[in-house]
Amino acid sequence: MFRVDLNCDLGESFGRYKLGEQKEILKYVTSANIACGFHAGDPSVMRETVKLAIENGVKIGAHPGLPDLNGFGRREMNITPQEAYDLVVYQIGALNGFLATVGERMQHVKPHGALYNMASKDSELAKAIAQAVYDVSPKLVLFGLAGSKLTDAGEKIGLHTAHEVFADRTYQSDGSLTSRQQTDALITDKDHSVAQVVKMVTEGKVISQQHTEVLINADTVCIHGDGEHAVSFAKYIKETLESNSIVVSAVFD
Amino acid sequence: MFRVDLNCDLGESFGRYKLGEQKEILKYVTSANIACGFHAGDPSVMRETVKLAIENGVKIGAHPGLPDLNGFGRREMNITPQEAYDLVVYQIGALNGFLATVGERMQHVKPHGALYNMASKDSELAKAIAQAVYDVSPKLVLFGLAGSKLTDAGEKIGLHTAHEVFADRTYQSDGSLTSRQQTDALITDKDHSVAQVVKMVTEGKVISQQHTEVLINADTVCIHGDGEHAVSFAKYIKETLESNSIVVSAVFD
Amino acid sequence: MFRVDLNCDLGESFGRYKLGEQKEILKYVTSANIACGFHAGDPSVMRETVKLAIENGVKIGAHPGLPDLNGFGRREMNITPQEAYDLVVYQIGALNGFLATVGERMQHVKPHGALYNMASKDSELAKAIAQAVYDVSPKLVLFGLAGSKLTDAGEKIGLHTAHEVFADRTYQSDGSLTSRQQTDALITDKDHSVAQVVKMVTEGKVISQQHTEVLINADTVCIHGDGEHAVSFAKYIKETLESNSIVVSAVFD
Amino acid sequence: MFRVDLNCDLGESFGRYKLGEQKEILKYVTSANIACGFHAGDPSVMRETVKLAIENGVKIGAHPGLPDLNGFGRREMNITPQEAYDLVVYQIGALNGFLATVGERMQHVKPHGALYNMASKDSELAKAIAQAVYDVSPKLVLFGLAGSKLTDAGEKIGLHTAHEVFADRTYQSDGSLTSRQQTDALITDKDHSVAQVVKMVTEGKVISQQHTEVLINADTVCIHGDGEHAVSFAKYIKETLESNSIVVSAVFD
Repeated sequence: MFRVDLNCDLGESFGRYKLGEQKEILKYVTSANIACGFHAGDPSVMRETVKLAIENGVKIGAHPGLPDLNGFGRREMNITPQEAYDLVVYQIGALNGFLATVGERMQHVKPHGALYNMASKDSELAKAIAQAVYDVSPKLVLFGLAGSKLTDAGEKIGLHTAHEVFADRTYQSDGSLTSRQQTDALITDKDHSVAQVVKMVTEGKVISQQHTEVLINADTVCIHGDGEHAVSFAKYIKETLESNSIVVSAVFD
Repeated sequence: MFRVDLNCDLGESFGRYKLGEQKEILKYVTSANIACGFHAGDPSVMRETVKLAIENGVKIGAHPGLPDLNGFGRREMNITPQEAYDLVVYQIGALNGFLATVGERMQHVKPHGALYNMASKDSELAKAIAQAVYDVSPKLVLFGLAGSKLTDAGEKIGLHTAHEVFADRTYQSDGSLTSRQQTDALITDKDHSVAQVVKMVTEGKVISQQHTEVLINADTVCIHGDGEHAVSFAKYIKETLESNSIVVSAVFD
Repeated sequence: MFRVDLNCDLGESFGRYKLGEQKEILKYVTSANIACGFHAGDPSVMRETVKLAIENGVKIGAHPGLPDLNGFGRREMNITPQEAYDLVVYQIGALNGFLATVGERMQHVKPHGALYNMASKDSELAKAIAQAVYDVSPKLVLFGLAGSKLTDAGEKIGLHTAHEVFADRTYQSDGSLTSRQQTDALITDKDHSVAQVVKMVTEGKVISQQHTEVLINADTVCIHGDGEHAVSFAKYIKETLESNSIVVSAVFD
Repeated sequence: MFRVDLNCDLGESFGRYKLGEQKEILKYVTSANIACGFHAGDPSVMRETVKLAIENGVKIGAHPGLPDLNGFGRREMNITPQEAYDLVVYQIGALNGFLATVGERMQHVKPHGALYNMASKDSELAKAIAQAVYDVSPKLVLFGLAGSKLTDAGEKIGLHTAHEVFADRTYQSDGSLTSRQQTDALITDKDHSVAQVVKMVTEGKVISQQHTEVLINADTVCIHGDGEHAVSFAKYIKETLESNSIVVSAVFD
């Protein structure tokens, strides 16, 4: 039996600013990465998003980001590993505050945006983040780019990890994502997207832009929470995966 | 046997900005209120302050404040009870993140500055804050102004509370602090300060500016962490209390 | 000949967060109040909004707010008059930076949200804000609630002022707005809204909730920039005013 | 006759956090780079610092930084040239607000910290910053690392530039500063420091760590505003330069 998790970034509103249709998307995903106030989210949004996730039976994870609300945590910042450790501990803790109020446990941690990207390539940063997650609780699952320094660091330290793949991104023969600078970085056809995921989950392989088969772990698929077709795509991928006899469920359900 | 706690606001540095001589002051106090990043403090400062407090055997509490770094959390803001609830949960959680990494438990929560003052007088805000503390953990102790709406709310909800008194402030016949607008608000003589505390702890009374004896609970004394004579005063009050056979220890030691 | 200005709060997006359909609304208003980064807006949004306003021939004003992005500047904060002065100078200056790059002059300043409301009632705050505007440039026009402490302070100091009225709010017999706590605070019928404005502009009067006629100056009307019907209402009020022979133009055109 | 400017970063306090002894240092420097609220400084600090600089006859410049108060603007962030342009315009404008209130003109702009360093090496960023300065006012002087991409960009666009040198840093044979990672990056002997500056100013040369003579423009020397010996060093360098017949004055006095 094959199984895969569908995860989505949620709780990205801030004060008067609303982002994403999270009520709808929560019907289709199995893990929610909730922003923790550094790149998006605020205490009230966090409380509401935790409540919504629970109502939908969706597992909850922290989605810590760089302290850059204006850049939505997408601009790389030259932080030290110690600073990365500290801001990950802080943000996991903050979300855990809301989970404590409703007697719920956190499932996972997935770094956001530039922090995720930097940790995919920089082993010192990856190690610091994995250590932060482990130190808060060794039971947390670390989500990272499949086959990256971040999942490496998590495994080395003794954490469960979830290798994340992308439905709408193409891959290179070394298993990395095609850079967004390239014109062929994105898969816009939804059937092509889902077919890539089905192959990843059932065969553990992806066809690279160089037409080679590349081995890949696909524990969880990143689902986008905003954009015009976000909800309909989430529904479509869930149904298609299930019709291919793939169980869609949270990573350690 | 009489006993009293000495508490101090700590972890108030931010990035390159340093505030207070916390290494020294931690030798004399028994409870540390650690800023959580809203009015002061940052993740790295929080981690370092937690470590220092533990090394000195000082109990740790969260010191949540209004989201106003520029005003150091001292400017009243018209937040709703729900917003107060949310920002208290968030900040307790964030500090708990650092405590989890070292396997330590939080003892207490003391709101900071304008949040503390507003919660002393506004029962709706007080209730929301007490509920936030209780919901995160009913074992936490709520610190508030002696005899205020905040300690009331804490007791009503079933929390242990610590009534806080001030060594360097004068009192009115209704038990409230003399407003800082008044010229006689502050006690500047250190012997007078300490004598007031000794009377509060041993007799449960304070002499008001109207020359009446007022009943007061004195579970914990606020010790200032910065200012020219902060360290020497902390040392002096601890020694004088002890020489008056008062045990200086954390609230539920 | 009667004339009136239509002003609208613009430039309220922030980073990835988008607010309002400013391209559309700029076709119908004559003065734009541009957020300056404290309660909303960021440097890039400011630059783009200045450009759009100029392309539409709309006069530009600064819209300084309290330093409270999470609360959108709507939560009253207990700032001193000096702090109000400083944050108004700062924000006018910041917007003037962008105007300088395109060789344009600022027309006016309208405080935002809680700062606007506090300055309507608190003469010390009003005086500080008027002084800030005057000190940056005595040629600036100060927008404030019609008949408020803010317009008073502006006139006293020698500034041109524009008395602002609301199409969708009801008035009390003392000329103040009906509190939003009251059920009859809002006018939801668009014809009723516009009729109120026509009467204000042509007769200098408004009918209060107590059925009395109250004298009111109506130099400029506040038009909302977001909400479902914002654009269609802006178009409707402009056309209806013009069909009533009222010239819609910026305050000192 | 030789002349050189002594510039110092000032206005770096924030709210309750105080940094530097600016009252003292202003007696010895000739140009003040005033922080504008992004990496340090706040509106009230800016107003006070402008006032102090004027009282001491010190020329005023804007010191725009990255939006990173917690990192004091010292952590590189991957901002776009357009974002750099926007945040420089914003910050110059904000400081100009305070200068307008006292009828004073801004002399110069010097980017801060990581923004300064990135602009020294990245010509696109340098160009964007130079364009921002020029667009606000072509009369402004752009301060940058001597011989860097930033001074290049300023000159190309038609701005006056001031090449900045360091008394306490060693140089490489290509004219760059020795990296702070190297053990020989700093000059700790004050006579050695000042001798290096005298040679730079009178001969236009510096001896590199490779014992070669390197040509260098020395229009202005960076003086540190905090640290234990900041004030005494500022006094010492000023007096020593003057005793070497070097006029210490602002760049275009």
